Amino acid sequence: MTRVLLLHPGAMGSSLGSNLVENGHEVYWVSEGRSEATEARAAQASLTQTGSLTAAVTEVEVVLSVCPPENAIEVGRAVAETGFLGTYCDANAIAPATSQRLLDIYGDRYVDGGIVGPPPRVQGHTRLYLSGPNAKQILDLFQSTRVQTEVLVNGPLSASAMKMCYAAYTKGTAALILGIRALAEHYGVSNALQAEWSQAQNSLWDRSERMGPGTSRKAWRFAPEMREIAKTFGGAELPSGFHEAAAEIYSRMASLKHEEDVETTRVLQYLLAGRND
Amino acid sequence: MTRVLLLHPGAMGSSLGSNLVENGHEVYWVSEGRSEATEARAAQASLTQTGSLTAAVTEVEVVLSVCPPENAIEVGRAVAETGFLGTYCDANAIAPATSQRLLDIYGDRYVDGGIVGPPPRVQGHTRLYLSGPNAKQILDLFQSTRVQTEVLVNGPLSASAMKMCYAAYTKGTAALILGIRALAEHYGVSNALQAEWSQAQNSLWDRSERMGPGTSRKAWRFAPEMREIAKTFGGAELPSGFHEAAAEIYSRMASLKHEEDVETTRVLQYLLAGRND
Repeated sequence: MTRVLLLHPGAMGSSLGSNLVENGHEVYWVSEGRSEATEARAAQASLTQTGSLTAAVTEVEVVLSVCPPENAIEVGRAVAETGFLGTYCDANAIAPATSQRLLDIYGDRYVDGGIVGPPPRVQGHTRLYLSGPNAKQILDLFQSTRVQTEVLVNGPLSASAMKMCYAAYTKGTAALILGIRALAEHYGVSNALQAEWSQAQNSLWDRSERMGPGTSRKAWRFAPEMREIAKTFGGAELPSGFHEAAAEIYSRMASLKHEEDVETTRVLQYLLAGRND
Repeated sequence: MTRVLLLHPGAMGSSLGSNLVENGHEVYWVSEGRSEATEARAAQASLTQTGSLTAAVTEVEVVLSVCPPENAIEVGRAVAETGFLGTYCDANAIAPATSQRLLDIYGDRYVDGGIVGPPPRVQGHTRLYLSGPNAKQILDLFQSTRVQTEVLVNGPLSASAMKMCYAAYTKGTAALILGIRALAEHYGVSNALQAEWSQAQNSLWDRSERMGPGTSRKAWRFAPEMREIAKTFGGAELPSGFHEAAAEIYSRMASLKHEEDVETTRVLQYLLAGRND
């Protein structure tokens, strides 16, 4: 049994936490400054509440960070400042160069992670990639859970690189497709594009119709993830423009965070209206 | 029967010309400065050879421009300088803003075109979009041929906009996928990406393996086409970075023009070697 501090129980984090609890581990979370929705998710996942980060870190051997990519460094620094001496695992969608900053802080106690797939409610759809000398410690925590784990051995930041490569396609093409739909709308050729896209590319038109509802609530956090991917391309001296553009697309949709199932045609209005910002 | 000057009989142009000849039209081409390969294609398509552009334009009612996008303006200007007074149709992969420059030259005698699909050797795979007040004249030329034609009515530059939207996805995602393969190679996670991509996204790994052979010989002309698409996004105040990045990917592959079936793994070397240029 390992005691783990989970920062923070969002949709993905609480589902990972639930898998750890079912596996016999004790999983803490910090309630200070978190919303009621987070508290409800934490309770549902049988996580153990602690009031403050300073109190929580004294209870655990492992800290697992699952948060929006733009908060990853801030969370890592806050934990380090408490004097925590255990293993720190960042499972966020960050560039290897961003992950390097956490490696610089934690050294051999750092495990780089990258999650591919949805919150692990069922078996076989979610992979947690891990890298670094202590990767096996995190892998063991998830043994026999609904989370498939895999240690990548080509360098301590491979897990982040893998996550970036994977999301580069899925979220990059979704942004591209929404951008093209907006382009067709602007130039008055949506009907012709619908005809072309309906017969070709596995009914790309239907896919594009599902992309509005599928991304609108998550776009606010996709934007910084796209910037991390752009940074990953830049770090390899490959062109970063695909994901800088994707970040701009998702930024223009950020205000749709609290709306349910926004139709693609309405998303296009946000993309085209974003021009005046 | 209409006399048409085709500039120039490349793979696409000669196939369009062949369709026109079979439809009873006389199709001229200008041999001056063209290669033996072009001459062979023109002969194969039963096109009528003329020595110079100045001589050719006196023979025809219609000029049809089918050339790499970066030559479209130069070809359009050269024809205008001969004093040609007939209909000028540009069927190239150019931005509406580029097409506008030809509209400025030819006015109502200009027909904007955009070709989607392969050279029309069989029925049902190639569409020629047309726009502008004289679009029907070009549509009639191709009646009952293997080229499906469609007039777009939302403005005189709709055909170019449609072509840009279509190619934005096909060639844009191909460049993105090749870029991600190079990214994975750089960060040492190609094996993990292969495992993910083999089971997901309609076997995206196999698609990526076909993309090297499928694009390497054409990349030199895809690069300027991607810049035209970037310009099209820019003209709508939508992010142009997707296709600026795609242009960079294809630029790094440009020297593969004369090689057959270059494997994707070898293309990646060009993408990564391009960093030192």
